[in-house]
Amino acid sequence: MNILLENATVIPMTGGEPRYFKATVAIRDRHIAMVSQAEDAAEKFLRICPDARRIDCTGKVVMPGLVNTHCHAAMTLQRSSADDIALMEWLNDYIWPFEARQTADDIELGARLGAVEMLLGGVTSFVDMYWHESSVFNAVRDTGIRAMLTASCLDANIGACRRDVEELTAKAAGSTRITAGVSPHAAYSCSPATLLEARRLCDRYGLRMTSHLSETTDEIRMVAERYGCSPVEHFDSLGILDGLLAAHCIYVSDKDIELMARRGVSVAHNPSSNMKISSGTAPVDKMLKAGIRCTIGTDGPCSNNDLDMWEEMRNASFLQKVSTGNPLAVPAYEILKMATVSGAEAMGYGGQLGIIAEGAIADVITIDIFKPHIYPIYDLISNLVYCAKASDVETVIVDGEIVVEQRRMAGIDVGELCMQVQDAARRLSRTE
Amino acid sequence: MNILLENATVIPMTGGEPRYFKATVAIRDRHIAMVSQAEDAAEKFLRICPDARRIDCTGKVVMPGLVNTHCHAAMTLQRSSADDIALMEWLNDYIWPFEARQTADDIELGARLGAVEMLLGGVTSFVDMYWHESSVFNAVRDTGIRAMLTASCLDANIGACRRDVEELTAKAAGSTRITAGVSPHAAYSCSPATLLEARRLCDRYGLRMTSHLSETTDEIRMVAERYGCSPVEHFDSLGILDGLLAAHCIYVSDKDIELMARRGVSVAHNPSSNMKISSGTAPVDKMLKAGIRCTIGTDGPCSNNDLDMWEEMRNASFLQKVSTGNPLAVPAYEILKMATVSGAEAMGYGGQLGIIAEGAIADVITIDIFKPHIYPIYDLISNLVYCAKASDVETVIVDGEIVVEQRRMAGIDVGELCMQVQDAARRLSRTE
Repeated sequence: MNILLENATVIPMTGGEPRYFKATVAIRDRHIAMVSQAEDAAEKFLRICPDARRIDCTGKVVMPGLVNTHCHAAMTLQRSSADDIALMEWLNDYIWPFEARQTADDIELGARLGAVEMLLGGVTSFVDMYWHESSVFNAVRDTGIRAMLTASCLDANIGACRRDVEELTAKAAGSTRITAGVSPHAAYSCSPATLLEARRLCDRYGLRMTSHLSETTDEIRMVAERYGCSPVEHFDSLGILDGLLAAHCIYVSDKDIELMARRGVSVAHNPSSNMKISSGTAPVDKMLKAGIRCTIGTDGPCSNNDLDMWEEMRNASFLQKVSTGNPLAVPAYEILKMATVSGAEAMGYGGQLGIIAEGAIADVITIDIFKPHIYPIYDLISNLVYCAKASDVETVIVDGEIVVEQRRMAGIDVGELCMQVQDAARRLSRTE
Repeated sequence: MNILLENATVIPMTGGEPRYFKATVAIRDRHIAMVSQAEDAAEKFLRICPDARRIDCTGKVVMPGLVNTHCHAAMTLQRSSADDIALMEWLNDYIWPFEARQTADDIELGARLGAVEMLLGGVTSFVDMYWHESSVFNAVRDTGIRAMLTASCLDANIGACRRDVEELTAKAAGSTRITAGVSPHAAYSCSPATLLEARRLCDRYGLRMTSHLSETTDEIRMVAERYGCSPVEHFDSLGILDGLLAAHCIYVSDKDIELMARRGVSVAHNPSSNMKISSGTAPVDKMLKAGIRCTIGTDGPCSNNDLDMWEEMRNASFLQKVSTGNPLAVPAYEILKMATVSGAEAMGYGGQLGIIAEGAIADVITIDIFKPHIYPIYDLISNLVYCAKASDVETVIVDGEIVVEQRRMAGIDVGELCMQVQDAARRLSRTE
């Protein structure tokens, strides 16, 4: 699609100064063709692409779409089904029986709702991790969101995971937006053999790996008992730490951090989830200072309970400030980097995504900042990260295609989807 | 005004079971006249009040308006003006010079924007604390929000505070929505003489007192050095702890908590502010268990940076869960109580406000829950507290009057207001 975003305030996230400026942004097919401050920029582009869809962005911010690097989208079906109860009761009486009952169609339905929620909130890419991940493919494709869909495994289902990966890679072969990945669940729930098999699957298909890592004190204890080291060291000893996208990383020692930095680990930090289920606080400030690529995730909607990256950005900053006792920790621009360009790099799109620059893939969002909860504007970056909300997102473009316009999903009846989800929730939560 | 809310899902917050039910809610003049589950309830009310404005609430929640018990609304003028910098630089180079330049009209303008932001987000009452608080009166009156406007004092301005209180009480005399109050700044910034004079002002005019209390380790140290006790004990020794609305209460000992419970202190907990400026984490779970009335505030928009009570509710719960290590700490219904009925009690409206019940004052909001980030619904309370957003608030009724309808402020040009605020911000932040 050819699109012309006129009179915009652009936040390019390319690291250059100034951090935002007035400009015209042109999209041609799947890529950003022009970012120009010239007066006649729009005119020039229209001469080449007279059919371009023109969007007046006066009073709007144009920035890269947000990247959610850790999610279990299909779990929207269980959103708020079991809050404020103890972990083992939660797993035994709610989550596991529910998951045992759900079909591939249910997973597709839940993922569809999750993708819609994310797109409406300006998330243009996400990393998903779940069972039967190939069931998520159609949902994601239909909504238009970009995703890395990773097939999860435990020891018991490594065979199913292998088939899932095969199916995912076949489906993703023709897609410019969807890639496959492999996600061994965690160091305590996967044997070394399973972890190594996951690695082999990655190598065979050229895929990335993601995993939960150092999330709880229980995990630290179990891994220490079994392997005499930290989960980070255990992964490294198996050769699977290199380039890993590691979710949580709450209980990491200075030695772990040094090792993670050396191995090019990307961290998916999930502040709301870590708070809600009392996991703890990840040392993001410290990891950033050690040169580790930190990104932001929502985690699943059972432990959040939504997929709102604006809340995650605020909380990522606020939680670091209160936990370090330093009100300067992880400032607004650093947070925005985590949620855009760093997330894109962690997904393997370094230099191509998460930025507004000529030649980059056109995953772009517009934000209506002319709102009483955002005004006045002194430092736009600060206003965006600390005041803006998912509901301020207006237009969402993925791969050069408009998928949300004026806060409405293109081609999806969201009301109907909500009702289908409610019906599925009712059926699956029945405990007769 | 006479209003009929039909086909609603009502959350009465009266403490009874069930916690929500389908009902018709009728408002007559300033009060809730009827909450009925009878089929013919609407019909009956229309016979008595045929002119009633009918609002179909199918798929909507009807609940008490939110109560923000700690705010400095006029500081919206400085929103995001100085984030991610150190405290003394913040005060010396930004906040204080700005405040020295602003006029009564500026304060009124800032408060107007704050009140509009709050109303649009479903806040129907707030407690404000600032200098020249009588300047806030007109802004608050024009927007229609309910407020307790408290004149703040330091040692240097106790005379101005006295005049402010006189002016406020005179203005508030004819209002059903606005009351006055007195707010000595804090134990470290006010001498015992100033604190006692504030108490005398309260007694003379029959007003409530609010103050910052035990917010920082610096405050604890200074009060210990000067008076050999904790700020809570210091206030008690002066006889000003009784019935106090105390903001923050982060560094309170078990002994302090026991004393606060005995003296009927209400706590205004401000989770986002406490996180953002690294103040620390208030022991809300412990204070609630000790029988202290805990409520929720946003604090001012320099340390938050918005006035969004939905974010505060989420964070109030999440911060307790992560800081206590207990995922069961301060569950959703307790949070909703803090933000409604308990807040109303702390403002002096016990039994009359913060509830949907016959005879109560009609401060009522409707929430559109038919949204992808809220569905599916298992436990409505959980969905509301953990998923709903300020932008889901649809209709806001204060004192029986509709002040927000379909997400739009009645009688206020919000765009024009934002532009005025931007102009004032530009003028006041000039540092020539």
